[in-house]
Amino acid sequence: MRTLKCMMAYRGTKYHGFQRQDNAHTVQEAVEQALGSVLNHPATIYGCSRTDTGVHARQYCFSFQTERPIQPLNLVRGVNGRLPDDISLLSAEDAALSFHARYACRGKEYLYLIHNSESPNPFLRDLACHHRRPIDPALLQACADRFIGTHDFKSFCSAQAQRTSTVRTIYDFSVEMSGDSIILLVKGDGFLYNMIRILVGTMLQVNDGKLKLSDLDGILAARDRRCAGKTAMACGLYLNRVFYDDAYQTEPKKGLRIVKKEMEPVPVPGWIR
Amino acid sequence: MRTLKCMMAYRGTKYHGFQRQDNAHTVQEAVEQALGSVLNHPATIYGCSRTDTGVHARQYCFSFQTERPIQPLNLVRGVNGRLPDDISLLSAEDAALSFHARYACRGKEYLYLIHNSESPNPFLRDLACHHRRPIDPALLQACADRFIGTHDFKSFCSAQAQRTSTVRTIYDFSVEMSGDSIILLVKGDGFLYNMIRILVGTMLQVNDGKLKLSDLDGILAARDRRCAGKTAMACGLYLNRVFYDDAYQTEPKKGLRIVKKEMEPVPVPGWIR
Repeated sequence: MRTLKCMMAYRGTKYHGFQRQDNAHTVQEAVEQALGSVLNHPATIYGCSRTDTGVHARQYCFSFQTERPIQPLNLVRGVNGRLPDDISLLSAEDAALSFHARYACRGKEYLYLIHNSESPNPFLRDLACHHRRPIDPALLQACADRFIGTHDFKSFCSAQAQRTSTVRTIYDFSVEMSGDSIILLVKGDGFLYNMIRILVGTMLQVNDGKLKLSDLDGILAARDRRCAGKTAMACGLYLNRVFYDDAYQTEPKKGLRIVKKEMEPVPVPGWIR
Repeated sequence: MRTLKCMMAYRGTKYHGFQRQDNAHTVQEAVEQALGSVLNHPATIYGCSRTDTGVHARQYCFSFQTERPIQPLNLVRGVNGRLPDDISLLSAEDAALSFHARYACRGKEYLYLIHNSESPNPFLRDLACHHRRPIDPALLQACADRFIGTHDFKSFCSAQAQRTSTVRTIYDFSVEMSGDSIILLVKGDGFLYNMIRILVGTMLQVNDGKLKLSDLDGILAARDRRCAGKTAMACGLYLNRVFYDDAYQTEPKKGLRIVKKEMEPVPVPGWIR
């Protein structure tokens, strides 16, 4: 038996998120189908995270087990040949037998892409949130700074979600402007349901003058979803990077690590990272 | 009566090119419909160029006439509100009454985008040609250099096309690499049917070792489509810029020129320009 660690990228527009569901088309289902066809046995994959409907991934890790002696490069080619064109397998490598993409994950970085201009960009359709009012990146950064650290984010969590603890730590939250793209990067130990989209939606309301920067502390303290702003569109959100301890990898590596030098996330419209 | 000069961008995937046709969905038809609804009278637009099925435009100029006193900014907003999300009106301005987007056009620049990597990029689906074999940009540039100048491009013209002269001048043809994107820019006085796609397809065959660089002179001399390489995919091709004499514009400008500073073409996945 062997465990393989895989990286993929996907455009989430047509999927009801990553995780397999009855009666809904998911990324997990599409990948398991392609993988099972290459391995010639039913495959179950373990993903690093759930993602919501319409949310994308530039770098998503999953693991699975097999007894087949297939070379990682051949696996990548075979699976890509069978995947729909909105999912791409970037790499595969042998990992420790006990490796599990969710349990071993040490942190995640999300990216939110806003296209800020009068006219929409037809090439960013479904890949960015279009915002017409001029954005002040310094103001957005001032908002983001208030969220960095350990806070109870209950006000920024969808009311549907049932969580025992709503305390999370945001390590970093940066705002960058590149042309008419605004790129928000959030790194944390974990995120509540819809948390990033509600944070971004609230920050955009501060930008548009509908909320004040000084309101944010009170919104955090209220622990009430109704105090925060709107949930920003799913189409601007990307799982950007996932972080793992090297300890979880076999030493020396058995499998050929391929495709992406240093596993840079897959480029997205309008900007390079 | 007034003449307006408009710039737009579109994703050509779902259209049978720009020009109106019976029984086929075209960009012209979609724009005339939105424009007619805003102006409240049937609108006929004159485009700067035909484009093939699946070909995109980062900057496309059209002109039309109306007697309505609508402000250009309101026109842009109204039309964008009615256009499908794969077409975007970037600007509108008053021009000389005699301005015609096709007759006044002095030159065009096309861009061909190749995504060069083992795995496809799901965000570049329909927006780039995916090429798996490693590309040597210096070799592509050496090919491009042979095509610069005035030549008879009959070998690089779809056999279906009926043209009296197949002589064209390419002013500039550059190859750039940015990460795993290869960007080809071709500027010329005009292009034959499928000419750029056949040039690119032939250059890729030189890259892949199926043709030699030294074969290109013979292919040009043969004046026979069968001697050249394959036609590269439409989805990698963009009308990138269109050039006009300033003489064709009213002085001083009556309309507000909006949206794009210096009318940079709309950004496309994976790179910024």
